[in-house]
Amino acid sequence: MPVSMYAVSVPTFQKHLHALDGILDKAMAYAVAKKIDPATLLKARLYPDMFDVTRQVQAACDFAKSAAARLANVEAPSHPDTETTFAELKERIAKTLAFLATLKPEQMDGSEDRVLTIKVGPNDMTFAGRDYLLHFALPNFYFHCTTAYGILRHNGLEIGKRDFMRRV
Amino acid sequence: MPVSMYAVSVPTFQKHLHALDGILDKAMAYAVAKKIDPATLLKARLYPDMFDVTRQVQAACDFAKSAAARLANVEAPSHPDTETTFAELKERIAKTLAFLATLKPEQMDGSEDRVLTIKVGPNDMTFAGRDYLLHFALPNFYFHCTTAYGILRHNGLEIGKRDFMRRV
Repeated sequence: MPVSMYAVSVPTFQKHLHALDGILDKAMAYAVAKKIDPATLLKARLYPDMFDVTRQVQAACDFAKSAAARLANVEAPSHPDTETTFAELKERIAKTLAFLATLKPEQMDGSEDRVLTIKVGPNDMTFAGRDYLLHFALPNFYFHCTTAYGILRHNGLEIGKRDFMRRV
Repeated sequence: MPVSMYAVSVPTFQKHLHALDGILDKAMAYAVAKKIDPATLLKARLYPDMFDVTRQVQAACDFAKSAAARLANVEAPSHPDTETTFAELKERIAKTLAFLATLKPEQMDGSEDRVLTIKVGPNDMTFAGRDYLLHFALPNFYFHCTTAYGILRHNGLEIGKRDFMRRV
């Protein structure tokens, strides 16, 4: 049988949030080893008007949390963007994973055809659940996970595709 | 009904390859406007041991082509990595899109449970089709699309999430 909305969403979010958590561990250790102020790494970005590492991690968490909540038709917990340390970002990931773990596959049954309206900047966007997941939530989630990885790589952190894919 | 393997794969690949093509158009125009040798942009990378823009685009095309071919159980066309110009990379994308356009949704029916074995470096990896698509092909595809975008952004190209998402 075809794939369920749950299978396309939650396990992907879980896998790559765990991967991101592992990358943050390596970045913390790298900052210590190289005597880099951790805040310098967390504020690194690829261009002045792009998000820094902190915002990339927050955005990845938020796309995962919001997508899963909308598809399961439950309220997403509120996670204000207040993190300023690696430990706090890891806690943000942990809270997101804890929320994802509360969701059951059957809560998303039928969400593929449910019409969702979301705010993107000043605009409303309306999607069928299927299109929202495949063409909005997933690409955005991957975008921010990949860019967090790319910024840290650019700053000399020795990680590889294996860390991004969490192939253990 | 849940989502089909085709719906999760081919339209995603098509959308983001079109987006990448549009980003390459903007990068070509940027090189002309700023009198940058196009080869300099194509060889840009975020770290010496990461892929440059050219290889990121080739890899995005290859993950799309191989995944679609494996799931549809057909032979993928061979596209050697010989591109050295923006025009040639756009042609590579066009060939990949032309191949994707030949595939019919029903060719992928049942591929979610088919067992696939692929070579990753020196190793064989074995997956159910569902896991191969969701946890190997899609993250790799998005990784390379995002990193091509990130390298060009880092080099001053004025593009935004709208270009990545091909929101037109």
